Amino acid sequence: MEKKLQELKKRLKEIYDIHSSMSLLNWDQNTYMPKLAGDARGSQMATLGRIAHEKMTDSRLGELLDELAEQADQLPFDSNEASLIRVAKREYEKETKVPAEFISRFYQHTSQTYQAWVEARAEDDFGKVAPYLEQTLELSREYAHYFPGFEHIADPLIDRADYGMKANALRVLFGELREQLVPLVEQVTALPAVSQACIKQTFPKEKQLAYVKELIGKMGFDFDRGRLDLAPHPFMIKFAHGDVRITTRVNEQDLSEVLFSTIHETGHALYELGIDARFEGTPLHRGTSSGVHESQSRLWENIVGRSRGFWEAHYPSLQAAFPAQLGNVTLDEFYRAINHVERSLIRTDADELTYNLHVIIRFDLELAMLEGNLKVKDLPEMWRHRYQSDLGIAPSDDKHGVLQDIHWYFDFIGGMFQGYTLGNILSCQFYDAACQAHPEIPSEIAKGNVSVLHGWLKEHVYRHGGKWTATELVRRATGSDMTIAPYIAYLKRKAGELYLDR
Amino acid sequence: MEKKLQELKKRLKEIYDIHSSMSLLNWDQNTYMPKLAGDARGSQMATLGRIAHEKMTDSRLGELLDELAEQADQLPFDSNEASLIRVAKREYEKETKVPAEFISRFYQHTSQTYQAWVEARAEDDFGKVAPYLEQTLELSREYAHYFPGFEHIADPLIDRADYGMKANALRVLFGELREQLVPLVEQVTALPAVSQACIKQTFPKEKQLAYVKELIGKMGFDFDRGRLDLAPHPFMIKFAHGDVRITTRVNEQDLSEVLFSTIHETGHALYELGIDARFEGTPLHRGTSSGVHESQSRLWENIVGRSRGFWEAHYPSLQAAFPAQLGNVTLDEFYRAINHVERSLIRTDADELTYNLHVIIRFDLELAMLEGNLKVKDLPEMWRHRYQSDLGIAPSDDKHGVLQDIHWYFDFIGGMFQGYTLGNILSCQFYDAACQAHPEIPSEIAKGNVSVLHGWLKEHVYRHGGKWTATELVRRATGSDMTIAPYIAYLKRKAGELYLDR
Repeated sequence: MEKKLQELKKRLKEIYDIHSSMSLLNWDQNTYMPKLAGDARGSQMATLGRIAHEKMTDSRLGELLDELAEQADQLPFDSNEASLIRVAKREYEKETKVPAEFISRFYQHTSQTYQAWVEARAEDDFGKVAPYLEQTLELSREYAHYFPGFEHIADPLIDRADYGMKANALRVLFGELREQLVPLVEQVTALPAVSQACIKQTFPKEKQLAYVKELIGKMGFDFDRGRLDLAPHPFMIKFAHGDVRITTRVNEQDLSEVLFSTIHETGHALYELGIDARFEGTPLHRGTSSGVHESQSRLWENIVGRSRGFWEAHYPSLQAAFPAQLGNVTLDEFYRAINHVERSLIRTDADELTYNLHVIIRFDLELAMLEGNLKVKDLPEMWRHRYQSDLGIAPSDDKHGVLQDIHWYFDFIGGMFQGYTLGNILSCQFYDAACQAHPEIPSEIAKGNVSVLHGWLKEHVYRHGGKWTATELVRRATGSDMTIAPYIAYLKRKAGELYLDR
Repeated sequence: MEKKLQELKKRLKEIYDIHSSMSLLNWDQNTYMPKLAGDARGSQMATLGRIAHEKMTDSRLGELLDELAEQADQLPFDSNEASLIRVAKREYEKETKVPAEFISRFYQHTSQTYQAWVEARAEDDFGKVAPYLEQTLELSREYAHYFPGFEHIADPLIDRADYGMKANALRVLFGELREQLVPLVEQVTALPAVSQACIKQTFPKEKQLAYVKELIGKMGFDFDRGRLDLAPHPFMIKFAHGDVRITTRVNEQDLSEVLFSTIHETGHALYELGIDARFEGTPLHRGTSSGVHESQSRLWENIVGRSRGFWEAHYPSLQAAFPAQLGNVTLDEFYRAINHVERSLIRTDADELTYNLHVIIRFDLELAMLEGNLKVKDLPEMWRHRYQSDLGIAPSDDKHGVLQDIHWYFDFIGGMFQGYTLGNILSCQFYDAACQAHPEIPSEIAKGNVSVLHGWLKEHVYRHGGKWTATELVRRATGSDMTIAPYIAYLKRKAGELYLDR
């Protein structure tokens, strides 16, 4: 068995190395690549992607996993070896069920769709991309049918990012969340708006970058094992245990952009940086799901980064970095500005309270499309209808409506949005569990010490990487299944403190 | 035949894409990679390298090349198709003659040697690396024997970088050059030294970088198809027709470092940027040899970049960038400072006149080692002896002697140094041929216009990429075989103008 395990690890390491190289191609494309290198970069990605796919679907790998799986029954479920075999086998089966021919057809289609979307969005003309989107819907349904026996047609798509989550259960969960959020948003937005003036002054770019670099260092981001660069869209990407990079963006007229983008990506990075080094080179060496990953970015961004305590510790250094802009602004004014709530049209600009309403609209619409209950041509109208009913505001054009997000125009329809809201829900469950174990966490954070929280997360979440599914991990780390109660309580408490009870 | 050619191109493109990805891994390692990512990067490189080697030695590729080579006899030698088949077949044969087992043994050995060299150099203890170097010598001899029928044992090693050049012929050529250079250096260095004070002031880093960025833009470096970054050692690297990058380094106490490193790498980049775009994805899409590549970096660095005319055009902007440092320095003072000649111990710091003496010493010593006429243990002594006789100065330690260059401690012994001197020789042949066709080149350069020269080089050198061997290319571009006469004439003319005839 030891010999077979060695062969398995060798094969997985090769795939891991190819994927890491593809990640570098991707990172470079988003940071430093010259303008005219795009076509060649596409070809390099396609070549490595094809080779990785060949190696991942190699029948010898399948045999090896079958042989090992039989013997793994004698190992404890929790052992690293049994977990590796279990997770690798799951990946192998997923990878081999979808014909290579389909994958190549799909990527050809999405690259055309992406181009059409760029044009359609610029010209605010949904009609230009609608025929492509219809085809994407067909392909998404085709993908699902490679996994017969599903309960809901979206389930195989959701499995790609959030393994084991089911559309029907999520619909119920998100429905409950929506029922609580809609009236809360109504209550808060009926009050006079909070002033954001203090964060909407002019803040020089280099100073903003220098500040967040220092800040995330204090949060535990290890610059010997990572970098921070600028990119048009903030993201986190990992090449190795010793190489986890994040990007951010700077708006000279709005300080909150760099602060919360950077803290958000740092949350993703802390997760990857905290995985057990012994998992490197295997599918265990990565965050277990989109929802759990997002729970970490949102935990650090919102629960920590938008808390009063965090800024009690760090606001003096922020004032020192920008004395002309913030010297006369009180902590309370700043704290309220970064927690400003408003009804808005754009998901990525949304505040903590309204954010999930944006996500749930998309989730419901993609399920309806996949079920055949919503036609692509009726999507813009339904979008407006749902924005009006859920957020009390609707876009007059499609650019600020159905054309705003890249997701449906770049990948499948289905399986991409649920992770954001799952992340928000889970962020509170994990944070509450950490505080239950260490009640001093909030006061330590207010003293500038995040290491108690970080330590708990490493121990209970990060180090396990992909060893447990999200469901298993949540149970082990928090002692219960996923539940929206802590999240609702958190939002109500914060809305009360900032708006309702003042 | 068309179908087979398509298959060939498809296979070559795949290899090209893997090599491009490896180049990005390499570039990143030398520019932005975090400190603790080194081990993982080594593994990524090894994995892609192994896959590329498998694809390059695939027997189907060999069959295809055999079949195509037969039919290629009916095509004109000059046609792109015949050239592609010819060059790809040559590469394939070279690649398959050396067993994969040897390559892996060799790389394992060199990574240990490299570590030993780093220590040996730090501690100035040649004895620490000598046993490794003995093994390297054995492996270099073993490599040569995979190519039986050579005239000199160094020839197969030289073929790796300068295909078709022969050790015996080079020894004669370099011997003649040395005979001319030694007395010329004696004459010049007997005169009072020129002052370098004006370039050895303090020049702020960011301003130096901004200046060279603008300068190389004027020289034709296209920032839409490339980048300039900082790295510990300047280099040029290409990922694609639309992605050619250079790096440079800055010394705040010596302005000449950034100027001539950057212009040197720009010369390499202009060559790669100028290759026919239709060659992309094939082995024709790269400079044809180390010597021809170096001829372009040295042509731009020295013949252009260290000429009075070039600075007649650009010195005013340099003064404007550094008014406090250069405002009162005349063009003539600056021109003399950047052409300062001295007997020195370090090759990479050497001036134009003494540079080749450093190279020829290394070339002669490596031939002697390969022939069995010089033992590794006697190398430091012989090094000192040759420095004394050729340059009139000898190092008192090995750190400034035989341990200074990475080459022997990182690759084979043999085949790595000749390119530098071949480049110097060829730079003058190409430049003279360009001026023969366009006598206005020097006066245009003095007006800030390098495009006549650049145009001639693109037409006669760059666009052909790897289509012709260096020998073929030199004949076609200059009308004659390689000769040292123009180079000697150039050096004498410049030494006369700057030193001897004043």
